[in-house]
Amino acid sequence: MNLEQYIEDIARRSKEASFALRSLVPETKTMALCGIADLIERNRERIKEANRIDCERGKKNGLSAAFLDRLFLDDSRIEAMARSAREISGLEDPVGKIVATRRPQGFLLEKVRIPIGVVAMIYESRPNVTVDAASLCLKSSNACILRGGSDALESNRVLVEIIKEALEGAGIPKDAVGYVERTEHEGVYHLVRQEGLVDLAIPRGGESLVRAVTEQAKVPVIKHYKGVCHLFIDSSASVDMALKIVKNAKVQRPGTCNALETLLVHEDIKACLLPKLRDALEGVELRGCEKTREIIPEAKSATEDDYYAEYLDMILAVRVVGSVDQAVRHIERYGSGHTDGIVSQDIGNIDRFTGMVDSAVVTVNASTRLSDGGVFGLGAEIGISTDKLHARGPMGIGELVTYKWVVRGNGDIRR
Amino acid sequence: MNLEQYIEDIARRSKEASFALRSLVPETKTMALCGIADLIERNRERIKEANRIDCERGKKNGLSAAFLDRLFLDDSRIEAMARSAREISGLEDPVGKIVATRRPQGFLLEKVRIPIGVVAMIYESRPNVTVDAASLCLKSSNACILRGGSDALESNRVLVEIIKEALEGAGIPKDAVGYVERTEHEGVYHLVRQEGLVDLAIPRGGESLVRAVTEQAKVPVIKHYKGVCHLFIDSSASVDMALKIVKNAKVQRPGTCNALETLLVHEDIKACLLPKLRDALEGVELRGCEKTREIIPEAKSATEDDYYAEYLDMILAVRVVGSVDQAVRHIERYGSGHTDGIVSQDIGNIDRFTGMVDSAVVTVNASTRLSDGGVFGLGAEIGISTDKLHARGPMGIGELVTYKWVVRGNGDIRR
Repeated sequence: MNLEQYIEDIARRSKEASFALRSLVPETKTMALCGIADLIERNRERIKEANRIDCERGKKNGLSAAFLDRLFLDDSRIEAMARSAREISGLEDPVGKIVATRRPQGFLLEKVRIPIGVVAMIYESRPNVTVDAASLCLKSSNACILRGGSDALESNRVLVEIIKEALEGAGIPKDAVGYVERTEHEGVYHLVRQEGLVDLAIPRGGESLVRAVTEQAKVPVIKHYKGVCHLFIDSSASVDMALKIVKNAKVQRPGTCNALETLLVHEDIKACLLPKLRDALEGVELRGCEKTREIIPEAKSATEDDYYAEYLDMILAVRVVGSVDQAVRHIERYGSGHTDGIVSQDIGNIDRFTGMVDSAVVTVNASTRLSDGGVFGLGAEIGISTDKLHARGPMGIGELVTYKWVVRGNGDIRR
Repeated sequence: MNLEQYIEDIARRSKEASFALRSLVPETKTMALCGIADLIERNRERIKEANRIDCERGKKNGLSAAFLDRLFLDDSRIEAMARSAREISGLEDPVGKIVATRRPQGFLLEKVRIPIGVVAMIYESRPNVTVDAASLCLKSSNACILRGGSDALESNRVLVEIIKEALEGAGIPKDAVGYVERTEHEGVYHLVRQEGLVDLAIPRGGESLVRAVTEQAKVPVIKHYKGVCHLFIDSSASVDMALKIVKNAKVQRPGTCNALETLLVHEDIKACLLPKLRDALEGVELRGCEKTREIIPEAKSATEDDYYAEYLDMILAVRVVGSVDQAVRHIERYGSGHTDGIVSQDIGNIDRFTGMVDSAVVTVNASTRLSDGGVFGLGAEIGISTDKLHARGPMGIGELVTYKWVVRGNGDIRR
């Protein structure tokens, strides 16, 4: 079988499985999800053994320490995967919710939540995504096709075997969770071209992967390319609050997409804020505009590229702006539409900022790091969207469903 | 200016206008929409004069009578356009609705309805779409770029001038409604490739136009290709009700996308239903499967192509099936995901059908012709979606908005 046929065959079987998922009752899904959790715990040694092979091959291939750390599974991480499946089983079922209205003509009009169908997940090293994605899709009655990174192949294979065993135990077709074992790049492109079989693709990973997938796709894609997150410190801001928020947003976990990358400071507060900021952000490399460097001379000079950069590191660009609107324009131009915030005590400026900034998440007097599915109470995250249609920001199971209209009449016709 | 630059320039100005629209208050929108209605009424003669040029050119170019009829504007159609703008002004404002929850961590989490941004509308002959699309986009605070058919160029130009005058009268940037005067086909393709400037494209028209636009697009597209609508007459159906519904669905307006194209009849009711059906559908050409033709010998023999066909005409394909599930499978295979229904008195079969049929609209004991934005109470329709993401079925202003998250804290940080 050539690669294209191989991918189409998986997609076809997933689509077929998705028919059976349309009529799943919640109890069956719970049984399968608890089954996944139990089997993960019972197969701990088997998972670790497979993961050892991946990690050893990774070391031989010279993968970075950070990459190897993401790949590595120990007892506590295996336990966390099982716990995640159990938590997802306990979420409110997103399928079947109905909003009904009686229309004046007499019939009942229902808007019914239903699964999307077949979701293709494309991701990189972390094996826990395999369990999370399968669990979230199952909970929302979607079939899924998992295409993990080649470096996690053995770990993912065992995890998928376990998931399929749990599906069978609950009487759900095994093809409800498909897995692409052939890891040629071209296979990803075939996968996102399966119109009519794959209903949605969610690529997660570096910007180049996500761009390549989006470029090739014929099926809808929900994605974010990167997180160039901003905070604007308004002239009315509480300096103490601003320092606390900036510090948290930048240093609490700089490698995440909701970490702060560029700080915009109002002209009128710069003299008061910037010296304290330098002290509060010890260990962070500052790259400032000319006005910033008048106050923090040791800051490097920020270039145009710095304003576009997603550092994911202990680096922060700093720019002085003259107004809320200048801050909004900067964010519109250089931002990625992920998460951007204002620190201010002025209700007019807050309203202007939240009204004009068109990002998936806008924060007011809060850290950008709060932009997260777990923090928002959406349950585990299947991805983050900076697109404008269907889903924005953190995506949980509530974003893995669509709807249909049901017209219930009694011989009703169009007049 | 070459065509690509011309289109990009329009898109860039629309994007700029969309910033101003983000902060529009409802009263300004109402003023502009009522202004559009008033100015249409006041410019009746000017509109008719422009339309006369289009109609004469159309006649010379040999356009069909049906096409010319869609193009033609008389007093009552001009009046209807003004009425539509007024009705849209009275709809509930879809922007700014907020669902807020206090998270356990302390901050307030808001989900806020906002405009999508810039919507490109691609459509064919009817000039009233120009007014409807501009009005619906304005009501939902979106900028729009209108690309009407070349045959309606003069009529559309005058209507757009009127709309822009009304925008100015309300203090809204004229570029909030953009218009593509250059009608080369390639211009449409440039339009739907303006990533970052155009946020959504809605092509309306024949299947080939919609397919070409979708194929070329880099921006999200919401569309339906065609409406191959089905009714399944279950063995438990009331024969009288079935005949009434089938007749309405097929003949009330056969040229519309929600008209019936294929009738599926349960084996056990065929002997009772089909002879009466033949009489009820006088003037409709029937194309039946073998079992249908045993009862209606004068029916033509249906081919595979008939089951895929959107006739938009007084033709009906008829097929006998053995079960609800066979009907579902037929619809899954040959249908277009637009509108499909069941006529039945058996609650189990109704549940099975509505649960398994994955179309945008599913009808129960009702005509497929009820699948309509006006009938559903959504107000004027901007389009119909058979896609699965963002919008399904009739699309009103409620589908022209997206949302963003706003986190309102008081120094809240991630722990």
